[in-house]
Amino acid sequence: MKRRLLLVSNSTLHGGGYLQHCQQQIQDFFGKEVKRILFVPYALHDRDAYTKTARDKFKTLGYEVESVHETPDPVDAVRKAEGIFIGGGNTFRLLKALYDNKLVTEIKKRVLEDGIPYMGSSAGTNVSTISINTTNDMPIVYPPTFAAIGLVPFNINPHYLDPDPNSKHMGETREQRITQYHEELETPSVLGLREGSMLLVEGNKATLLGSTKARLFQRGKQTTEYEPGSDLSFLLTDAQ
Amino acid sequence: MKRRLLLVSNSTLHGGGYLQHCQQQIQDFFGKEVKRILFVPYALHDRDAYTKTARDKFKTLGYEVESVHETPDPVDAVRKAEGIFIGGGNTFRLLKALYDNKLVTEIKKRVLEDGIPYMGSSAGTNVSTISINTTNDMPIVYPPTFAAIGLVPFNINPHYLDPDPNSKHMGETREQRITQYHEELETPSVLGLREGSMLLVEGNKATLLGSTKARLFQRGKQTTEYEPGSDLSFLLTDAQ
Repeated sequence: MKRRLLLVSNSTLHGGGYLQHCQQQIQDFFGKEVKRILFVPYALHDRDAYTKTARDKFKTLGYEVESVHETPDPVDAVRKAEGIFIGGGNTFRLLKALYDNKLVTEIKKRVLEDGIPYMGSSAGTNVSTISINTTNDMPIVYPPTFAAIGLVPFNINPHYLDPDPNSKHMGETREQRITQYHEELETPSVLGLREGSMLLVEGNKATLLGSTKARLFQRGKQTTEYEPGSDLSFLLTDAQ
Repeated sequence: MKRRLLLVSNSTLHGGGYLQHCQQQIQDFFGKEVKRILFVPYALHDRDAYTKTARDKFKTLGYEVESVHETPDPVDAVRKAEGIFIGGGNTFRLLKALYDNKLVTEIKKRVLEDGIPYMGSSAGTNVSTISINTTNDMPIVYPPTFAAIGLVPFNINPHYLDPDPNSKHMGETREQRITQYHEELETPSVLGLREGSMLLVEGNKATLLGSTKARLFQRGKQTTEYEPGSDLSFLLTDAQ
């Protein structure tokens, strides 16, 4: 399988600039051959402003950015893309717009069959997985399904957050929320990517990158912590 | 309109027991005439355990609890109910189960036409409003729509949380999430009920109760803070 994915937990790390904490990984990922990246800004309301932010950042890394919302035919833009980056924002809004523009199947085909590199951040990472069932976002719009692009057969929880022992807030912790998901479904596994971490997928190999650990949730098992550098290829087997 | 609602932000307040912080309001609300309350435990996975928790608490307040999941015919149970309490948990799971059991229309009819008292807490408050678009929960299951029972024409955000100025977490604040909702829709208003607060609705009168303030979000306007005791009846007018 030609699949190449860079799935980033968060676009901005505390104290840094937009995509600053992962810029080395972005350059390693897209390399020298890709010149032009197709950007999908659907997760934010102001698509023009969002495109400018992404364009400015990628320019400093040596890449041109074309935004799918600026093209007359989004499906055709995906067909011609050398590489894709889907940015963060609201996951429900993003997934609905991907379906509205008939891009879900097309992106899946381009990435899994044609092997173009796919980078996602936050909401863009959520929609790359099997479903958006483990997003943290508010359901501000109703997508036609929670099934997503399905570039990997498991779920990711971006911005994974450990419980704050000093908090007096009584809303569910992130871990409790993911446990509720597994009360409903036997699989998939959920990989909690803390801010600062990202997953690199190359064919059937998956590696944790970045500066923070990830936490894996599997129904009926103890949660497991993984250090940066860990091989998580076992997650790419179906029905983990 | 006969409508009588007690919409509580949270079931448990830090340092207290289940429904302890609102027990006086519960007794004032259901009064002496209601003897038996129909409980809806659908928001949690273990319905038996949840019913026991609710039953034990309401017993100390002088009420019997019958759980809708223990009845052979949930619709008939709603038709015969003297009062309803929908508890918290996962809002998506709750709303889906309400639709699966054909209770949405029936509860609306009983509350708005027949005037039986409705109490909701957390997820049970979300589903009483016009939609679940402003829930904080993880979308672990896919309900047939986000439209909810519609006992009031606005949205509530339970467990409303102010930003933590010391946090290094970069996920959206609650206020940013609600602002994203208003990027999509002109109305409805969103009432952020902090933990400790609740809304009492009697006919066309709405009053904020409890120990904390509430924050109101209306598209294109400055947010407004309301003290306990505030009259919020203006929210009951359609299309606020």
